Amino acid sequence: MTAQNHGEQIHEGEEGVNFYPFRFHDFVLDDFVPLFLRDLTITQFSLLSTDGSARRGRISTTHGLVETPVFMPVGTQGTVKGLTPQQLKSVGAEIILGNTYHLTLRPGDELVAELGGLHKFMAWDRPILTDSGGFQVFSLAKIRKVTDDSVAFRSHIDGSPLELTPESAVRIQQNLGSDIAMALDECPPADANESVMREAVRRTILWAERCRNAHTRTDQALFAIVQGGTDLNWRRTCAQALVAMDFPGYALGGFSVGESPEAMHAALPASADLLPSDKPRYLMGVGRPEDLLAGIAAGIDMFDCVMPTRNGRNASAFTNFGPIRLRNACHRRDSAPVESGCPCYTCVNFSRAYLHHLFQADEMLGPTLLSLHNIAFYLRLMADARLAIEERRFGAFRSNCLARWERQT
Amino acid sequence: MTAQNHGEQIHEGEEGVNFYPFRFHDFVLDDFVPLFLRDLTITQFSLLSTDGSARRGRISTTHGLVETPVFMPVGTQGTVKGLTPQQLKSVGAEIILGNTYHLTLRPGDELVAELGGLHKFMAWDRPILTDSGGFQVFSLAKIRKVTDDSVAFRSHIDGSPLELTPESAVRIQQNLGSDIAMALDECPPADANESVMREAVRRTILWAERCRNAHTRTDQALFAIVQGGTDLNWRRTCAQALVAMDFPGYALGGFSVGESPEAMHAALPASADLLPSDKPRYLMGVGRPEDLLAGIAAGIDMFDCVMPTRNGRNASAFTNFGPIRLRNACHRRDSAPVESGCPCYTCVNFSRAYLHHLFQADEMLGPTLLSLHNIAFYLRLMADARLAIEERRFGAFRSNCLARWERQT
Repeated sequence: MTAQNHGEQIHEGEEGVNFYPFRFHDFVLDDFVPLFLRDLTITQFSLLSTDGSARRGRISTTHGLVETPVFMPVGTQGTVKGLTPQQLKSVGAEIILGNTYHLTLRPGDELVAELGGLHKFMAWDRPILTDSGGFQVFSLAKIRKVTDDSVAFRSHIDGSPLELTPESAVRIQQNLGSDIAMALDECPPADANESVMREAVRRTILWAERCRNAHTRTDQALFAIVQGGTDLNWRRTCAQALVAMDFPGYALGGFSVGESPEAMHAALPASADLLPSDKPRYLMGVGRPEDLLAGIAAGIDMFDCVMPTRNGRNASAFTNFGPIRLRNACHRRDSAPVESGCPCYTCVNFSRAYLHHLFQADEMLGPTLLSLHNIAFYLRLMADARLAIEERRFGAFRSNCLARWERQT
Repeated sequence: MTAQNHGEQIHEGEEGVNFYPFRFHDFVLDDFVPLFLRDLTITQFSLLSTDGSARRGRISTTHGLVETPVFMPVGTQGTVKGLTPQQLKSVGAEIILGNTYHLTLRPGDELVAELGGLHKFMAWDRPILTDSGGFQVFSLAKIRKVTDDSVAFRSHIDGSPLELTPESAVRIQQNLGSDIAMALDECPPADANESVMREAVRRTILWAERCRNAHTRTDQALFAIVQGGTDLNWRRTCAQALVAMDFPGYALGGFSVGESPEAMHAALPASADLLPSDKPRYLMGVGRPEDLLAGIAAGIDMFDCVMPTRNGRNASAFTNFGPIRLRNACHRRDSAPVESGCPCYTCVNFSRAYLHHLFQADEMLGPTLLSLHNIAFYLRLMADARLAIEERRFGAFRSNCLARWERQT
């Protein structure tokens, strides 16, 4: 199975759990969605097989199927940096991520809606997940004031004062028209003290309920985000409250926010175990290839991270034999591809020497070609992991990967 | 006929004039090329039809056919900035240009040769033309001393002292392995006085002869460059001497070096007329769409210019209805494609509003998508011009283009 294998996408008739089972209170809500359509979303999750805690699944969305475990390339500003949709498809990308915070600041979610939604705007006809903007507000924005009502902040672009509420986070994502939206959360840093964490968990639960009430698009699933850092008690408190609200999917937020990889890896299995097994589980903003394997082993289905594109822009390549830095002089005369055997456009056509030259000469094509390869690497890793789970050899697969990568790291 | 039309490339059996007719003195030269192969190059030029001075032709090279008039996208450092070979082919690029000066400085022509030549290095399997480095030395290099023997200069990258001779210019281009190489010339600025121009013409002739004697690759054609600015007398002096040496193709250098467009347009017909009609004629470094049409009307067959890619990186688009600037606020909500009816990937998939957003957000994809469109525009203009010549309506075609472009310029 290669990253190019889209044959997986043809099984449309697969049985699954509806993300939005009909709920009685839907009939008494008052908005513009016709009653007979409310929550009749076609978004479904099928758990196809397991291997220990590792899960092989399939998400069906308005814009098509997603095979899990899945990696979602990050398209922060309505573009996966440097790559065309055509190039993303050529390496098998099935779903990408868009950032609510960035897109509402620029070009504006209402403009995107006016132009037909994010899919049409960026010419991506496969599924899109949008984050809620919470993480970005808490990590990028310059000044902020958090109350139960909202988070007030200043734009990192022009300093203008802005405010995000659970309701506006949902409204923005409904304007963007993503297939999967995320509830607004408060994401504390890894070193948050007990009272900060308590407030973040309390507010995350409160906001999830408000997001759920504000959410009306039936062609979009709304996932909730579990906070609580590496403390299992806080994770449990948060997860239990959110699971009781019956969301169609759950994310683990607040990982990879400053804690050690070991602390994250140790906390993942029990944190994932708090989530219902018949819903997709998404580990937000993670991570390195070894983190993805740890997440999969813990029972995570979805991942996103800027690493493949960011590292690609900085001349760092992921390969099956460990990472390499293309700027290094040792690649100057190196006629080998970035990764032998990789079927991506970059590896089929170009040498490390050519990539080295492009980065030395500051040519745009270097970042483009290496981002393409790195995403191909991530997607191939996921495809290989899916096959390993199906064949119940994920543990051995993971050990082999780690051993191979360590040799040259 | 669209820029995507490669059907033109299938007429392999066309009759033509051999670039390198067998020459007696070839049999007494001493080098490693077997005698029976010497100058048996397959490079040919066929003049298919004319319309006034405008010419419709076809160049056959080692790496395939080139339909003329042709525009050659510029790949200065072994890459057409921001575009993959796949993207270039998607808009119908048949031949691209590589810069001898840049490539010998970095990564080095011997390294390129060691890696299999420029075609393999940059994964471009269609024809490549390399300039001689002369223009760049006279316009980019920091310090220089010109003698009849060589031009000494300092690298614009690290200031290291370097020297280019007619022989080394040929050796470099033979290492790069381009299909068409250019003789080293001295390119004076537009405001050069009489004595500077005299010296430049004298040296250009001297160097052309030395290049011709140094050139041994039989799968590569060597073109000579005519200098002389806008002074027809100097052009005639230079052209007559070079034509007597029987090169397989001729370029007009020293245009678009500071003179007014009107002065260039006025000088072009007589300058082109000095060149043999059975050889391709190349106007170097030109130009704007209106300059290309002026060149075609004057009987020019080949053009190159950085404008489509440079303007594309700066958010300026060429369109059939005149140029537009995508950064302008009027495009913020503009759902139209960059150019209605353009079949390029950019115009088929994306709106001006999206391009506007990409440039506002400083996203790499903006320059890539707009460079792609601008090259598509240039190549389509050439394809349309070829058809107009075939149908003997080039004059009307040119007038119509100029009227359309002026409306919004």
